[in-house]
Amino acid sequence: MKLLSGAIAAVDHGGSLGRASALFPHAPKPFVDLSTGINPHSYPLFDLPATALSRLPEAGQLLELAEIAALAYGAPSAAHVAAAPGTQILLPRVAALVRPGKALVLGPTYAEHARAAAIAGHAVAEVGDFEALAEADLAVLVNPNNPDGRVIEKAHLLDLAARLRAKGGLLVVDEAFMDVGPVEHSLAGDVGAGGVVVLRSFGKFFGLAGVRLGFALADRLTAERLDAQLGPWAVAGPALEYGIRALSDTAWQADMRQRLVQDALRLDALLGRYDVPVAGGTSLFRYLSFAEASILFSALGESGVLVRHFGDRPQVLRIGLPGSEAEWQRLEGALAGWVARREDAPKEIGQ
Amino acid sequence: MKLLSGAIAAVDHGGSLGRASALFPHAPKPFVDLSTGINPHSYPLFDLPATALSRLPEAGQLLELAEIAALAYGAPSAAHVAAAPGTQILLPRVAALVRPGKALVLGPTYAEHARAAAIAGHAVAEVGDFEALAEADLAVLVNPNNPDGRVIEKAHLLDLAARLRAKGGLLVVDEAFMDVGPVEHSLAGDVGAGGVVVLRSFGKFFGLAGVRLGFALADRLTAERLDAQLGPWAVAGPALEYGIRALSDTAWQADMRQRLVQDALRLDALLGRYDVPVAGGTSLFRYLSFAEASILFSALGESGVLVRHFGDRPQVLRIGLPGSEAEWQRLEGALAGWVARREDAPKEIGQ
Repeated sequence: MKLLSGAIAAVDHGGSLGRASALFPHAPKPFVDLSTGINPHSYPLFDLPATALSRLPEAGQLLELAEIAALAYGAPSAAHVAAAPGTQILLPRVAALVRPGKALVLGPTYAEHARAAAIAGHAVAEVGDFEALAEADLAVLVNPNNPDGRVIEKAHLLDLAARLRAKGGLLVVDEAFMDVGPVEHSLAGDVGAGGVVVLRSFGKFFGLAGVRLGFALADRLTAERLDAQLGPWAVAGPALEYGIRALSDTAWQADMRQRLVQDALRLDALLGRYDVPVAGGTSLFRYLSFAEASILFSALGESGVLVRHFGDRPQVLRIGLPGSEAEWQRLEGALAGWVARREDAPKEIGQ
Repeated sequence: MKLLSGAIAAVDHGGSLGRASALFPHAPKPFVDLSTGINPHSYPLFDLPATALSRLPEAGQLLELAEIAALAYGAPSAAHVAAAPGTQILLPRVAALVRPGKALVLGPTYAEHARAAAIAGHAVAEVGDFEALAEADLAVLVNPNNPDGRVIEKAHLLDLAARLRAKGGLLVVDEAFMDVGPVEHSLAGDVGAGGVVVLRSFGKFFGLAGVRLGFALADRLTAERLDAQLGPWAVAGPALEYGIRALSDTAWQADMRQRLVQDALRLDALLGRYDVPVAGGTSLFRYLSFAEASILFSALGESGVLVRHFGDRPQVLRIGLPGSEAEWQRLEGALAGWVARREDAPKEIGQ
């Protein structure tokens, strides 16, 4: 059996309170977890029917979910949708849709794409330039990008997809945060011709990351191939129940998009008051890039406010939205404490 | 992209009320669903913490689950356990642990094993003789077998595993129903040396099939490879909560094993009163093999009692356990109706 290469080893992510406690053992609890891009305002919880837990998931319910997802995301039809227990578990399967070759990931971005492509046997490289993706057998990008929010325009994506398709390649567009737009640059409606797989995440926008539900949108044959890999009953009963209800609740979705825009603007204003510059992001998270980022990460962590840092890029942070007034106040207090300590710190002579 | 072969197409299974309604549109509702081997006495449901749905599953909780599963199943350690959202989704990944070659499945058995091996690129054949499995690169059997309950003894399994391991092959033992024994023939404790993967299903014995939780027990490196394929957060929050609680509840497990034995004996007695011979099975289902099986399937179905039939073997049925007195009475009524109609039917002259 082939040994694991370094690229296949596990990656650190945000969202782990266990890891936070290890890093900041003396922080006041509970942690305010702003280390993910998951909506803190979950879709309203409801009582599950007992059969959602006890019985095998019904094929008819899975089809209903696929139909609702196709409508919600703008895919051509339910036959273009493969539903999975989270987008994550789809990544190596999607990467394996093309023969092992050259995988290029537009980075810096979500680290699991490179890991998944390596698992599927590709030689993987990260490129910083969108144009370079045309050289790939498998090209992967996140749109809008995580963590910086960069958006690639649809016209460019379609052009790239056509070039890859012509040589039997594949473009994977991870639209994990596309629920908050800009939806005019989504490729969900353009998967029918093949050569493009769009990934959509249920848990982030609906604030239900524990449910594990994600989708691949693709041409019919590819969606069928992914369904075959997943097998029957891949989506759990609770995920079917929440997916069907939340994805068809367009009123909640519209209200939530507005609310998240307001929250993100409030976050910008708060950070601005403490001279923390916002460099990008989406309505579900903001992206910070400045010299003191790693100091701010530690200062916030010691105050029990957890944001996302990146081991290889100490100058950047990602910060999610506080979910309650108490959390906003904890963040503000932590920022104020950081600024006060910085101003109290002894200055070097001559400065 | 490679076209799907027939072997990769979807397979019919028990447990679908949608399919039952299509087959028996005039049956009295609700259906009594005896078409699966899922325990009708679910582990007691409890209120999930909201964070089980809203937050990403915690790595620490997944490790706790692996530790408890190792104890419950008798695996050498948590490092020998890969937890997944159901055993089903593991099958193609486990089949892909060996290079595409000759896969032999000891049959007749659960049809998904052949499908998964074909997806992984193997040339798949079903064999009826245990000894023939030694010729395989990938040998798969279900122990105790579904649907007939046949048990292969541990000594034979270990011998086969050693022969396969010596040539770089793999033995997969699906112990989906081993929770009800005979546990002395489980290979869960013997996975450390490699060459063996044991599959365990959470949903069947605990009656929580909708939760989607299953395990591969394997040598450390193989368990790590499977974990890498699944990625972080493969097991949903509700599955973590139920898995940790139910797998550590040894008192419930011991009581349930006794209860299921009693229920299965009661089912044997009931079937015997109506001259239906029981040919095998486990405490979670019984196996019927007799000339009138397909007639009985239809007669029960029209009475709203659903059992499992097999398209390619009309003379066999699998029947699960009724869950309540009302269900036992519905089954008894359906059997009595079948016998009465049979006795009323005009006899051929001379017989």
